Amino acid sequence: MKIGFIGLGIMGSRMAANLQKAGHELVVHNRTKAKADDLVTGGAVWAGTPAAVAGQVELLFTVLAHPEAVQAAALGEQGFLDSLPERALWVDCSTVNPSFSRRMAGEAAKRGLRFVDAPVAGTKQPAEKGELLFLAGGDEADVDACRPYFDVMGRAVVHLGRQGMGTSMKMVVNLMLAEAMIAFSEALALGESLGIPRELLLESIPGSAVAAPFLSGKKVKIEQNDFEADFPLQWIYKDLQLVATTAYEQGVPLVVGNAAKEVYALAKRDGLGEADFSAVYRLLSGQSK
Amino acid sequence: MKIGFIGLGIMGSRMAANLQKAGHELVVHNRTKAKADDLVTGGAVWAGTPAAVAGQVELLFTVLAHPEAVQAAALGEQGFLDSLPERALWVDCSTVNPSFSRRMAGEAAKRGLRFVDAPVAGTKQPAEKGELLFLAGGDEADVDACRPYFDVMGRAVVHLGRQGMGTSMKMVVNLMLAEAMIAFSEALALGESLGIPRELLLESIPGSAVAAPFLSGKKVKIEQNDFEADFPLQWIYKDLQLVATTAYEQGVPLVVGNAAKEVYALAKRDGLGEADFSAVYRLLSGQSK
Amino acid sequence: MKIGFIGLGIMGSRMAANLQKAGHELVVHNRTKAKADDLVTGGAVWAGTPAAVAGQVELLFTVLAHPEAVQAAALGEQGFLDSLPERALWVDCSTVNPSFSRRMAGEAAKRGLRFVDAPVAGTKQPAEKGELLFLAGGDEADVDACRPYFDVMGRAVVHLGRQGMGTSMKMVVNLMLAEAMIAFSEALALGESLGIPRELLLESIPGSAVAAPFLSGKKVKIEQNDFEADFPLQWIYKDLQLVATTAYEQGVPLVVGNAAKEVYALAKRDGLGEADFSAVYRLLSGQSK
Amino acid sequence: MKIGFIGLGIMGSRMAANLQKAGHELVVHNRTKAKADDLVTGGAVWAGTPAAVAGQVELLFTVLAHPEAVQAAALGEQGFLDSLPERALWVDCSTVNPSFSRRMAGEAAKRGLRFVDAPVAGTKQPAEKGELLFLAGGDEADVDACRPYFDVMGRAVVHLGRQGMGTSMKMVVNLMLAEAMIAFSEALALGESLGIPRELLLESIPGSAVAAPFLSGKKVKIEQNDFEADFPLQWIYKDLQLVATTAYEQGVPLVVGNAAKEVYALAKRDGLGEADFSAVYRLLSGQSK
Repeated sequence: MKIGFIGLGIMGSRMAANLQKAGHELVVHNRTKAKADDLVTGGAVWAGTPAAVAGQVELLFTVLAHPEAVQAAALGEQGFLDSLPERALWVDCSTVNPSFSRRMAGEAAKRGLRFVDAPVAGTKQPAEKGELLFLAGGDEADVDACRPYFDVMGRAVVHLGRQGMGTSMKMVVNLMLAEAMIAFSEALALGESLGIPRELLLESIPGSAVAAPFLSGKKVKIEQNDFEADFPLQWIYKDLQLVATTAYEQGVPLVVGNAAKEVYALAKRDGLGEADFSAVYRLLSGQSK
Repeated sequence: MKIGFIGLGIMGSRMAANLQKAGHELVVHNRTKAKADDLVTGGAVWAGTPAAVAGQVELLFTVLAHPEAVQAAALGEQGFLDSLPERALWVDCSTVNPSFSRRMAGEAAKRGLRFVDAPVAGTKQPAEKGELLFLAGGDEADVDACRPYFDVMGRAVVHLGRQGMGTSMKMVVNLMLAEAMIAFSEALALGESLGIPRELLLESIPGSAVAAPFLSGKKVKIEQNDFEADFPLQWIYKDLQLVATTAYEQGVPLVVGNAAKEVYALAKRDGLGEADFSAVYRLLSGQSK
Repeated sequence: MKIGFIGLGIMGSRMAANLQKAGHELVVHNRTKAKADDLVTGGAVWAGTPAAVAGQVELLFTVLAHPEAVQAAALGEQGFLDSLPERALWVDCSTVNPSFSRRMAGEAAKRGLRFVDAPVAGTKQPAEKGELLFLAGGDEADVDACRPYFDVMGRAVVHLGRQGMGTSMKMVVNLMLAEAMIAFSEALALGESLGIPRELLLESIPGSAVAAPFLSGKKVKIEQNDFEADFPLQWIYKDLQLVATTAYEQGVPLVVGNAAKEVYALAKRDGLGEADFSAVYRLLSGQSK
Repeated sequence: MKIGFIGLGIMGSRMAANLQKAGHELVVHNRTKAKADDLVTGGAVWAGTPAAVAGQVELLFTVLAHPEAVQAAALGEQGFLDSLPERALWVDCSTVNPSFSRRMAGEAAKRGLRFVDAPVAGTKQPAEKGELLFLAGGDEADVDACRPYFDVMGRAVVHLGRQGMGTSMKMVVNLMLAEAMIAFSEALALGESLGIPRELLLESIPGSAVAAPFLSGKKVKIEQNDFEADFPLQWIYKDLQLVATTAYEQGVPLVVGNAAKEVYALAKRDGLGEADFSAVYRLLSGQSK
């Protein structure tokens, strides 16, 4: 059985490669064809449109940048939803907002298709090493059907409930991720301004009780002033926009989360959008100009 | 040699008790005398004023609530600074802002006294168990002179540089503490609104890569809806005010840190000031009324 | 020639009544039929669905609460877009975000229809007195075609450019409105806490150089503690959400605008959503419980 | 009777010149002597220290930049408080926080001196034209004693109550000023990003119901991209810091006011501190680099 895979960016390309390495035959599509080259060399079939992928598979993974991209691939011209065979399973690993996931679930259901939302926790390296964590929402049987593939691409899957609950948990996780990165950057900027050597701060804060563990991985970037993107700043900005929309829909006030969103907005406008999101440190320490 | 100890609140009483347990003779003072009862029963000498403490010791610890309290004890009527013998060593373990510490260092120097700022990381339990971390600023010889006492009250001491650097690091640490607590609370509130069970959130978030390790200790409070204070909310609000003042003095923008400060302000106004600072979760999840 | 009118809330009902008073024959629809009673008594034709309105008119006004409502009326089941005759003119007076307006303009164009976005500045009283200000975007000929009707419902129209520019200006205006209301409320809360009598503040601030003129109208509500809605708080919250979405799309950081949004979120959660948006004063002065 | 005047910056120099023009003999002091040259040429007596001023007068005006400067002039080495004759009247026109004013009132009372806090509303031009508004706190008799001088320097005086109430009202006014300037700047940045011509925005917003009247004066600066300071940005940042301290002391949450403070912090760090505070528009529209 062939597997469809749409979206071959930083995350998708590595996830698809792991499926291929495990022996699965892939039918792939990406907006920019060049990103599919390695997979095609490895035996994957290229499809010129989302619909063309859909015609050849009963299981389809999508790993796209934002809800608009998912919407276009699913429902736009040559979208895949109308071409998937009945009872096919669409697994959306994109980071989107829960109400969008539920809408996609509805569109799938209308067509007799099955849907699982399964965004991932983890960035470039975990994607490469097959160590992602899948946060899944959907019917138990459908999630179970995904497990063999999740096992190849990740280290674990958490089934959080009905459709939309995977992306719900993803909102929660990325809100914390975004705020923790800024907390650390503000703390560094303040500490340095007071004369504490940056090396001392980078040595003592990550690993301490007040620092989220992922910050240990970011300290190297700051130390070396090398902000090549594992997770681009414009993505976390986008995710916070999805979080803000979700919070609005749910009527939950997020004073600090929205403040964090605007700090990333400032950083993006200062030209840091394609850098790693830890580059927000550059804005906060006055080095973004 | 007797040791002076002024300030017997949640932290100070436990720190002084550990000194006493280790065999040190104490001369103690506190605004509310009753809080000295246990120590006096254990052999400590009560002194009616800060000045009266100062007349009997060459080493003085202060653990007070805020800069105004330190100012009053040191320089107010019956303040201790004019009564300490020359070359005496004042160790201020209060959480104050760095410019205030440096001013106190100056006042001490004018009088031929030595000064170390040594605020602590850790709350009620670590204070009780002698497991605090001292963040020290001052001359190396002076910090070394404190080590035997720090060893009794804590598990480690970091010497961060000249006077004021201990409180500088304390600002950095508490800024992160304050923001992480809100990040977690916002994330919980958002997640619950989306239908993720609170137990699942409390199980999966603390301990994960995006959560500061101290949050594992807070999850019990939230689970049991019991917010007895280890670290009162009004203290973290006060600390963020000191951070904001420091950031202003240093010209460092803290968009998120100031937003966090105002969230604690809202929580305090809603009556949560004496609860543990994790009670900010109650505000953010709409339960503070 | 009959005129279609969909959306008979606080604003729409008054606007439609002014058209009727000026002698125009209306075909009306509203989600809740009762709100059309006065107009029907006055001679308007009731239509059971948006599509049913569309079948009878060549000019259609919509005054709906948010983009989702416009989307449903235009493109949902029994939506009007597929039923309007070719070359008909749809004038959307709803407050929506510019990218949504442009999408609607595109949907109209696809069907050979004309489109003008013309949200209004002004609330209940100006709507009633026919003193609204129309902020219009669209082809000059189309805006000109609307002028006789705008003249009946308002005191002026500003043609701001192509489709979407009316709603663009509306975002600008409501952002200022929302922030000014909070600035005034924060200032009042601070002043009162310092012992300045509320009456003195209400007398001296509105009308001064630092206060937006509309605040003079709000001081009565605060004086009398009567927050019946001219402009419900949940609408300004919704508008700020549209502003935030727009700012995200444009890459414009809005630190203060987003902070304002969250203050309204807190007020809404405290039960003030249906009160006038000036009731944010109650939250900020600690009276919302 | 000679009048003492300490502090000859943008505001003080113009205020003193108006007193001199009205025929009053002045004894003046300023940290930088050169700023007194014109007044001395006009007949004023130069005094080398604050104390030297105090020895010659029974009425003393101070117009200084911040509480620290007032503290130094009043209580520092060669400070004036210990040199003023008994029953002398000190009128502090500096913008300081209310608790500081009350502390100065106390220091004055201890020495048998009278004290009025009388900060001004108005910037460079009104100072020059004698059109300031004095916001006064103090005993009625003392405020009355000031009126002849206020009349020369200003157009009106509002007596707001006991000592500290003048500076209380000043906090209220400058909070609104600071927020309104940012609201306008955010609105402009958003509008321009959407394609509304800047000229159109500058023409239509100031003077409208949502814009504080003082913004009409700022539109010229933005139009001409000339931000010479009437009121330097670093002063409004300082004032917001005083407001934040006051709000903390009073337990009043100021979510938006503190967000505004940090926006000015960002602008100052980007080099706009000495520009007019309307230059925050440059930061918000992405032109500060």
